[in-house]
Amino acid sequence: MHRYERLADHLRERIQAGYYRPDDRLPSVRALAESHGVSLSTVQQAYHQLEDAQLILARPKSGYFVSPQRERPALPPVGRTAQRPVEVSQWEQVREGTCILPDTEIFHLGRGMPDIDAPTLKPLLRALSRVSRRQDLVGLNYDTLHGRPELREEIARLSVGHGCRLHPDELVVTTGCHEAISIAMRAVCEPGGIIAVDSPSFYGALQSIRAYGMKAMEIPTDPETGISLEALELALEQWPIRAIQVTPTCNNPLGYTLSVERKRALYALAQRFDVAIIEDDVYGDLAYAFPRPVTIKSFDEDGRVLLCSSFSKTLAPGLRLGWMAPGRYLERALHMKYVGTGSTATQGQMAVAEFIREGHFEPHLRRMRRQYQRNRNAMLDLIAEVFPLSTRISFPEGGFLLWLECDASVDTVALNTRLMTEGIRIAPGVMFSATGKYRSCLRLNYSLFDAATRQAVKRIGAILSESDPATAEDRIRASVLQESLSS
Amino acid sequence: MHRYERLADHLRERIQAGYYRPDDRLPSVRALAESHGVSLSTVQQAYHQLEDAQLILARPKSGYFVSPQRERPALPPVGRTAQRPVEVSQWEQVREGTCILPDTEIFHLGRGMPDIDAPTLKPLLRALSRVSRRQDLVGLNYDTLHGRPELREEIARLSVGHGCRLHPDELVVTTGCHEAISIAMRAVCEPGGIIAVDSPSFYGALQSIRAYGMKAMEIPTDPETGISLEALELALEQWPIRAIQVTPTCNNPLGYTLSVERKRALYALAQRFDVAIIEDDVYGDLAYAFPRPVTIKSFDEDGRVLLCSSFSKTLAPGLRLGWMAPGRYLERALHMKYVGTGSTATQGQMAVAEFIREGHFEPHLRRMRRQYQRNRNAMLDLIAEVFPLSTRISFPEGGFLLWLECDASVDTVALNTRLMTEGIRIAPGVMFSATGKYRSCLRLNYSLFDAATRQAVKRIGAILSESDPATAEDRIRASVLQESLSS
Ligand SMILES: Cc1ncc(COP(=O)(O)O)c(C=O)c1O
Ligand SMILES: Cc1ncc(COP(=O)(O)O)c(C=O)c1O
Repeated sequence: MHRYERLADHLRERIQAGYYRPDDRLPSVRALAESHGVSLSTVQQAYHQLEDAQLILARPKSGYFVSPQRERPALPPVGRTAQRPVEVSQWEQVREGTCILPDTEIFHLGRGMPDIDAPTLKPLLRALSRVSRRQDLVGLNYDTLHGRPELREEIARLSVGHGCRLHPDELVVTTGCHEAISIAMRAVCEPGGIIAVDSPSFYGALQSIRAYGMKAMEIPTDPETGISLEALELALEQWPIRAIQVTPTCNNPLGYTLSVERKRALYALAQRFDVAIIEDDVYGDLAYAFPRPVTIKSFDEDGRVLLCSSFSKTLAPGLRLGWMAPGRYLERALHMKYVGTGSTATQGQMAVAEFIREGHFEPHLRRMRRQYQRNRNAMLDLIAEVFPLSTRISFPEGGFLLWLECDASVDTVALNTRLMTEGIRIAPGVMFSATGKYRSCLRLNYSLFDAATRQAVKRIGAILSESDPATAEDRIRASVLQESLSS
Repeated sequence: MHRYERLADHLRERIQAGYYRPDDRLPSVRALAESHGVSLSTVQQAYHQLEDAQLILARPKSGYFVSPQRERPALPPVGRTAQRPVEVSQWEQVREGTCILPDTEIFHLGRGMPDIDAPTLKPLLRALSRVSRRQDLVGLNYDTLHGRPELREEIARLSVGHGCRLHPDELVVTTGCHEAISIAMRAVCEPGGIIAVDSPSFYGALQSIRAYGMKAMEIPTDPETGISLEALELALEQWPIRAIQVTPTCNNPLGYTLSVERKRALYALAQRFDVAIIEDDVYGDLAYAFPRPVTIKSFDEDGRVLLCSSFSKTLAPGLRLGWMAPGRYLERALHMKYVGTGSTATQGQMAVAEFIREGHFEPHLRRMRRQYQRNRNAMLDLIAEVFPLSTRISFPEGGFLLWLECDASVDTVALNTRLMTEGIRIAPGVMFSATGKYRSCLRLNYSLFDAATRQAVKRIGAILSESDPATAEDRIRASVLQESLSS
């Protein structure tokens, strides 16, 4: 880490902890340089980085200030879920979204696609190319069932960052986080069994529950504080639930991060009712706060947490490279891994291990976190401008996904169908429910905030405003006014 | 295809069809050149190719002759299977074999590993490296659920070679043949359902049956004519079987190829009892006969055949690149694909598509078929020399796997444990049975026949001979003789 980055992290922490408050004036460049024993340009670089992340503002001639508290639009309300385990439907919507070619549309708006065009990713392309030219041909051979040792070592080393001390031997490399979740479910639950999930929830996990003949017990989830522990406890008392499947850090689609206390409480509940936790941490490394939030796995004393993740959101999804730490279910997980795919493609593993070992991962993450946080703010501003006033919007603490609730009259499946004719694609809310709820919700991706994205968001806003009751009323009033003026 | 290759194929067909019989003298180079209107050197090249494949012999001064009929050692007997559906065990053996690092032992003897060091594979390495350097970054993006269109087009084009006319849209690219089989089983059978399999059978398929809570109905299989259709019919009459899972071309582990008539008859049985066929064709392109045998899928009128294959045996298993043509089960297969891995890693697909499109696949296959056929003959000769006389050996018609049955007193799991201390590994017979049968059988891989392989095979032969009753008798006789001589 560079000196200026260390300083920026120091300041960021103090801002996030409330030591410096919104609109506070920050120390002068000279004062900071003296107190930290660094050069003026180091302080300047640190301030630029925080400015870039929109945490602070420069006011000409008066110095740097903490950014004013953002006017946050209203959050979506807590969803109402069925109060019993249900079968999962909605495959048609999911299928439709995953069967299109990525090159044909404004694709990323509808999918969980990261920005793969960052310069900090270039060393990965070079590593991939190098691995293909290796003379020992290891990359062409069957890998072991666990995955390449050099990759598992790097993942274990990085796990300290989220409060774990994983050993390479407790890890299984997988074909994306998809396979990790799919293995985890089968490792802890039989067909017919019940899995509790946060709601709205990642559709991939819901569809796995469907495919393996299990049932989903959807737990109401607050867009700010996360899965309701009270509702979860009630469900655990009433139903023979086998596992809790959650994305507690930078949740997809809601964007919340469960607080440490609530993570602990969730773990305690799982212990009390003796159920497993399937923890999806696929966006965890993209939390805007520093240091990144800990995983529930970090509290795991008895191996009941199956931590699942991948490099799909942090590096590139086309690699299909994920991993899991299945705790006490390691043996079952290995069996499921074996029958599912045999082993994971070898070359990608070797390249990513090299990329991390050579120190390219952390700088890349830093860059992406800043970009995504900046994009979130810009996206929120744009939506506030072009969407109907009735729209409720999530406030993500990491990742690059936004959840919106439109007026109750809006059907986002129909909206998506209409948008597709214009080459735009969103993720309709029904995909995130087991039973087709969230019909007036949608998820947008802000990993990119380029001209095409802005154009598309404006277009969505325009279509929604057409039919919005409030906007329509305004329009009637305007035309009445016009008539009275022209008469 | 070169001219000499066409001529060689023509002659090979006539030899295989019995038009030229063992020890027959073949036409002179001059005669053949005249009758086919080709140059002398073309004929010579064709003859060299057939010599290389050990189909013909050159006798100095007298010309070319069809190779004498090989003295074939006795084939293993037809296995006795349980006459009811059973649960699959034997995971420990399979796990043990798949968890070791490939670099540490004479690994290929125990696994289904092809030779990946052939010069005809070099263009694939170049394609992989090129794909990683592409500026459009398509290789980093999520692929569609079906798989890259350019790869599916090549696979569809090649399908004419095994009698099919597949359309790219009926194909699903998978993470190896493993995933294809795993998807196929779940697409046609519920947990608790029964799947009929040939026996001995590929352990990966057996373990899938186990993992999905299904049962295996093992059907006795003849090492020469394949799965017993009579026994299969009986089983179909008696049990609610949902699917027949077979590897009818270059079977693993027995090496047989079901005749066209028997393939048709098997398909007719499936129609009569309205069950699906999961056809594993992973070694089909490595059949020594030309043209390669047709698939059962080529007779499929009503979409009940789910054809599964991969590039693991023909190119390289580390790519984890397979595909399936699931017929009428396409929709279910897509759902299973989605929850299993989301989509297949993108770069490998692009590289293989390029490799095939540029015309490198056929020459590579031709080379590997010749090499494997030559190795088979050499391996059989070596085994005849160094293994106890009681050993029964399969006679593979393609691929690179040999099945051996030792004296009934031999336990090949124990043999494997002992060999491992010497850095050698075999595949014990129990892995190929649902219930631990075939204890005195083993599978050997002859994709390589280098000094290390020969050394290892000799060592196995020596250990087996130590305890062989007949050999032991010989030894006693020898020592008695020695005693009488020295007294
Ligand atoms: C919460 C969550 N989990 C898992 C996944 C799947 O990740 P991968 O592409 O690594 O399989 C996604 C991606 O869409 C996701 O959003
Ligand atoms: C008959 C058979 N089917 C399938 C497979 C699995 O192939 P893949 O490595 O492509 O998953 C193998 C490999 O061992 C095999 O022998």
